[in-house]
Amino acid sequence: MSRQLKIKISVPFSFNVIFARNVFSSRDFLKNFFISPGSIEKKKVIFFIEDTVAESFPDILEKIESFDSKTKGIELVHPVFVLPGGEQNKNIKEAVKICSILSKNKICRQSIVAVVGGGAFLDTVCFAASISHRGVCQVRFPTTVVSQCDSGLGVKNAVNLFGKKNFAGVFFPPSAVINDFAFLKTLAPRDINSGLAEAIKIAVIKDSSFFSYLEKNTENIRGDNSPILEKIIVRCAKLHADHISDSGDPFEFGNAKPLDFGHWLAHKLESMSKGKMRHGEAVAVGIATDSFYAMKKGLLSKGEFERIINILKSYSLPIWTPFLGKKSKGRLSILDGIAEFREHLGGKLSITLPSGIGSKIEINKIDCKIIEDAFIYFKTISSK
Amino acid sequence: MSRQLKIKISVPFSFNVIFARNVFSSRDFLKNFFISPGSIEKKKVIFFIEDTVAESFPDILEKIESFDSKTKGIELVHPVFVLPGGEQNKNIKEAVKICSILSKNKICRQSIVAVVGGGAFLDTVCFAASISHRGVCQVRFPTTVVSQCDSGLGVKNAVNLFGKKNFAGVFFPPSAVINDFAFLKTLAPRDINSGLAEAIKIAVIKDSSFFSYLEKNTENIRGDNSPILEKIIVRCAKLHADHISDSGDPFEFGNAKPLDFGHWLAHKLESMSKGKMRHGEAVAVGIATDSFYAMKKGLLSKGEFERIINILKSYSLPIWTPFLGKKSKGRLSILDGIAEFREHLGGKLSITLPSGIGSKIEINKIDCKIIEDAFIYFKTISSK
Repeated sequence: MSRQLKIKISVPFSFNVIFARNVFSSRDFLKNFFISPGSIEKKKVIFFIEDTVAESFPDILEKIESFDSKTKGIELVHPVFVLPGGEQNKNIKEAVKICSILSKNKICRQSIVAVVGGGAFLDTVCFAASISHRGVCQVRFPTTVVSQCDSGLGVKNAVNLFGKKNFAGVFFPPSAVINDFAFLKTLAPRDINSGLAEAIKIAVIKDSSFFSYLEKNTENIRGDNSPILEKIIVRCAKLHADHISDSGDPFEFGNAKPLDFGHWLAHKLESMSKGKMRHGEAVAVGIATDSFYAMKKGLLSKGEFERIINILKSYSLPIWTPFLGKKSKGRLSILDGIAEFREHLGGKLSITLPSGIGSKIEINKIDCKIIEDAFIYFKTISSK
Repeated sequence: MSRQLKIKISVPFSFNVIFARNVFSSRDFLKNFFISPGSIEKKKVIFFIEDTVAESFPDILEKIESFDSKTKGIELVHPVFVLPGGEQNKNIKEAVKICSILSKNKICRQSIVAVVGGGAFLDTVCFAASISHRGVCQVRFPTTVVSQCDSGLGVKNAVNLFGKKNFAGVFFPPSAVINDFAFLKTLAPRDINSGLAEAIKIAVIKDSSFFSYLEKNTENIRGDNSPILEKIIVRCAKLHADHISDSGDPFEFGNAKPLDFGHWLAHKLESMSKGKMRHGEAVAVGIATDSFYAMKKGLLSKGEFERIINILKSYSLPIWTPFLGKKSKGRLSILDGIAEFREHLGGKLSITLPSGIGSKIEINKIDCKIIEDAFIYFKTISSK
């Protein structure tokens, strides 16, 4: 009789990231996301929209609700739910509230939860959907630059808990991601730039020609040139999608987290600022700090380092903030971000640094003295 | 420029189910579960034990806590947590409390959450671990027949929410499952029999020779013959493990749920009884009812049906209960279990029925009249 059984499984997931414009104006286009070809059953669909998006696009509710009665194969089970988004609502209480809406509306695992909003809102609704009935299908409509570039197309979701960013979450790939460029029209310049921090991040560590493209187009973006912005989003999304598909570790069982360049500092800074800094702004400070570190370690030339700092500045992104100076028991609070980052990812510390523009290495320890030198350097040049 | 990106990933999982005895008496044996060969890092381990298990095995805490200081490579981060188990504590509040313990003890994704207890307790702690940092490694020590046979070695976990069984949960395979037979010694006969309902379930639909083995050994089990009980657990666990490995759908994206034979009724009955019926007892009533249905549909001969009823009775398992008669608005409440089962699994209804002993088919609708006839039939023979 066997005294040991081995269970070995491999679970396949696949989904499309679609780039489009004004999808809610076309009933047929929407149908494509919700109805499998040849399906004879009616799909239950439930829509959640972030309140700020509903305010900026006042006809969107009517557009969504109008396709219900006319489109076969889709049953909108309830008028669209308009809920608050942002980091301050990305918590377990809000997630359980959404679970309760799914329960009351008898949403099943093969129904569709459609979510329209920014990264924090997508995270909250998708986390709720991912734990309801052990995972309900999700179609995401990211509405911000950062979520269209990066967070909206990932395979994970989470809410903040116990003051720790993303403490409660799961890996659960969406069924589809629809990047509708029409949503970008009403974004404030600050939000556009904040989103571009993720594009700069991935260009620095993965794609030098994309980095050059970002350098060349600073003026165009500042002038709100949509075709350029859209090109950047598509390219950035492709780099992220390729990473997920090709890394060999999409559910991040190992230590290496290359897409988290600049993020040990960013996550802590975002918490410390209590929502005053955008995620992308915190990422920009993280990129600047870790690039300084890479330069000091001989991984970046001074010229490469300056190109990185200049591109952040040209997109009006911060490279330093007074929050970095906050101390607790004589120690810079931001430095706790290193241990928290390790703890969240698990195993030994793994920090991604650029080694030249367009490539990267992993390091497993950090010399805090150099980090503090970086803060002094950036504080000095920021005050000039 | 591409207008569509395809993300396609395949995520591998593997784990061992180990059969053993008195593992907590051997320090080296335990070490094997927690330390990867060649690992130079200390693994953080945190232990959760169900209170009833700690009461029945008063030296277990000391045994676990003693290996901390003496075993290199393991760091027990806190004395063992003793918490209440059972269906009544399988809820989101208890899960968040466990998340908070993991957070306070700086447990990371590559730490180990070790859980000792019955199915409901394993479910609650493992759900908490599965959503903390998007999934912390888990080592399960199931302590009951039902959890050693079935629930403890599965790839899913969940807690009850909004009065719905397992509403909040995820698919997250454990790192290892250790079925320690020493835990079975203190179980009451009622709990042993309840666990055997899952063995009968899987024998009926998958393995006629196992069914015959169960028939032959009713006396031995009733006499608490441990070697026979252990053989049954190993065989039942293997059938479940093979199903997970070979079904091609371990995360249950499709409709078919063959292991849920008898469970549409069992889940509802368990909720309706408010903990008065064990899971296995509710499953026994589900097996009896659905076997009656299969006989009426010509899938089972009268002789096969009677063998199933007799085996349930010979293990002192119920085939009927007054809870089945409870009505709401003139309709039997238990029948709502059909819709709830479909809703939980998603898509169209799929009910597994035996087609002869040792094989099964799926049906997609149920004639409630036959179910009601089954209740009348079993009520009559139960009162004789």
